[in-house]
Amino acid sequence: MRKLEDLQLLIANSVSELKYPAYPAELYEPISYILALGGKRMRPALLLMACDLFGGDVEAALPPALAIEVFHNFTLMHDDIMDNAPLRRGCITVHEKWNQNVGILSGDVMLIEGYKLMMQVRDNILRQVLDIFNATAVGVCEGQQLDMNFESSNNIGIAEYINMIRLKTAVVLGGALKIGALIGEADQKDADLLSVFGEQLGIAFQLQDDILDVYGNPEKFGKQVGGDIISNKKTYLLIKALELVKNEQATDLDNWLAAKDFDPAEKVAAVTEIYNHLNIRQYAENEMQAYAEKAFEALEKINLPEENKQYLRDFADGLLVREY
Amino acid sequence: MRKLEDLQLLIANSVSELKYPAYPAELYEPISYILALGGKRMRPALLLMACDLFGGDVEAALPPALAIEVFHNFTLMHDDIMDNAPLRRGCITVHEKWNQNVGILSGDVMLIEGYKLMMQVRDNILRQVLDIFNATAVGVCEGQQLDMNFESSNNIGIAEYINMIRLKTAVVLGGALKIGALIGEADQKDADLLSVFGEQLGIAFQLQDDILDVYGNPEKFGKQVGGDIISNKKTYLLIKALELVKNEQATDLDNWLAAKDFDPAEKVAAVTEIYNHLNIRQYAENEMQAYAEKAFEALEKINLPEENKQYLRDFADGLLVREY
Repeated sequence: MRKLEDLQLLIANSVSELKYPAYPAELYEPISYILALGGKRMRPALLLMACDLFGGDVEAALPPALAIEVFHNFTLMHDDIMDNAPLRRGCITVHEKWNQNVGILSGDVMLIEGYKLMMQVRDNILRQVLDIFNATAVGVCEGQQLDMNFESSNNIGIAEYINMIRLKTAVVLGGALKIGALIGEADQKDADLLSVFGEQLGIAFQLQDDILDVYGNPEKFGKQVGGDIISNKKTYLLIKALELVKNEQATDLDNWLAAKDFDPAEKVAAVTEIYNHLNIRQYAENEMQAYAEKAFEALEKINLPEENKQYLRDFADGLLVREY
Repeated sequence: MRKLEDLQLLIANSVSELKYPAYPAELYEPISYILALGGKRMRPALLLMACDLFGGDVEAALPPALAIEVFHNFTLMHDDIMDNAPLRRGCITVHEKWNQNVGILSGDVMLIEGYKLMMQVRDNILRQVLDIFNATAVGVCEGQQLDMNFESSNNIGIAEYINMIRLKTAVVLGGALKIGALIGEADQKDADLLSVFGEQLGIAFQLQDDILDVYGNPEKFGKQVGGDIISNKKTYLLIKALELVKNEQATDLDNWLAAKDFDPAEKVAAVTEIYNHLNIRQYAENEMQAYAEKAFEALEKINLPEENKQYLRDFADGLLVREY
């Protein structure tokens, strides 16, 4: 089994070798630009990992893995326009560096280029691979739309929230693993189970991200603690708190959410205090644990040598037990 | 052979039966909205026509034909954002009715839905059909980018212009015909020839459109005559005029192109006068005729019964001999 870091490196090198036409420059330069911004290349590495787990040819899985990365960066290019984001990975975004029209049209071409790469699989799995890719791509768009809707909505339930993060983040992990498994000649049942593993793990990972934003050690987490609280982001923690909070504390929380002019540290401390009082961290960890367990249940049912299963368990543990 | 009008009607009915999920509404309602705005449904009808010409099952070709129409409307949805257009076919555009983000994301989903429809072909032609669709889709995006670039560029050559209209308009006609031919079990050579026929005819048609904008009978043409002149649109006529014009007339033309405040009728008359002096209409008609001849040359080489070839000739004549 190849190490995940090695697969990530293989992807990084292959991404840098992707060549696009020189003309029209406004269409193709942004593609090379956004792909060169880096990132962990986790999604395509998972596709290669799945192929490797079933004894498949990792090199043969490279074009579909690159398809996942090109697709992911297409979503970033369009999301950055929609979110009006000035920076992506510390660099100026495409619509700011060129203009918005360039961001729209280059993104469109990236989606098509994603299909071209994804089609580089054996004829006997072409239709199924593309069906998975289509479903994944539609899911990501639905997730993005729901995420935008939630910004201006005040009564989102936990189930709706979980469905949103599933579509926006988790579906693509499940899809990448399933496609990799099929390229590795896994049978249908194992490919499905690996997809469930990825999707449920993805939900658990996103819930952990919500928890870490409030309770993470800033040195280990690498992000500003409390950023979600400051921006009123509808995370699991806030949605659960709004569901449980009562009386004066409900008024307090509403006031903090409505506040326009505030000291960020004071808001983070006050809202965290409300979360603590409502035991929100425990609820979130229980929910995260429930999805992690679903992932591990699927994993146990996959027909793979114990060594390969252990590899997947170690991968999941590494993903989920980030130090708080 | 089915009549083209009947095929257009079949498409119109099938488009109205396309169903999309109800949730999230902001993602899917715009798709149904733009598809319901109408249009001549010429591109998908051509796909059905090609299938019919080779004795294929027209009903089986419906999903890929709808793919072409959904794809075309995806390009319209994104083009309208890029062009800042308030109206499409007399109705409010998607980004105006909802908002820009909805227009971007719904368009993205339409492109994916186009792939889903295009995949509904026999396994043995799936890869080839998708290769054609990919090349067509990339071509349209390149054409749109070039068209936007030309707006702010002052030295476009005729060859560049022809390449732009080929990519933006003609490639999709060739692609639709080729896919239809393959579904109708045409052999490779005939499918290629029909594609050339469509692409060259598409260029001729676009050149005719440029001519009609200046020299068309407004009652028959159905558009404001001189619209391209008023907006300084870089058409074949203007590019050729800029290439040939000399001395005082060159200064005159430059002045009209630079004018901010002018009487539209006066500008149209003055620029048309320059075109007439330079014999631009004749140049344009010769160029159009040259592309039409290439289309007919390809047509003659196709291995089809004379009756079917006559059908294609009549179709091309109907498209090109619009009354001036």
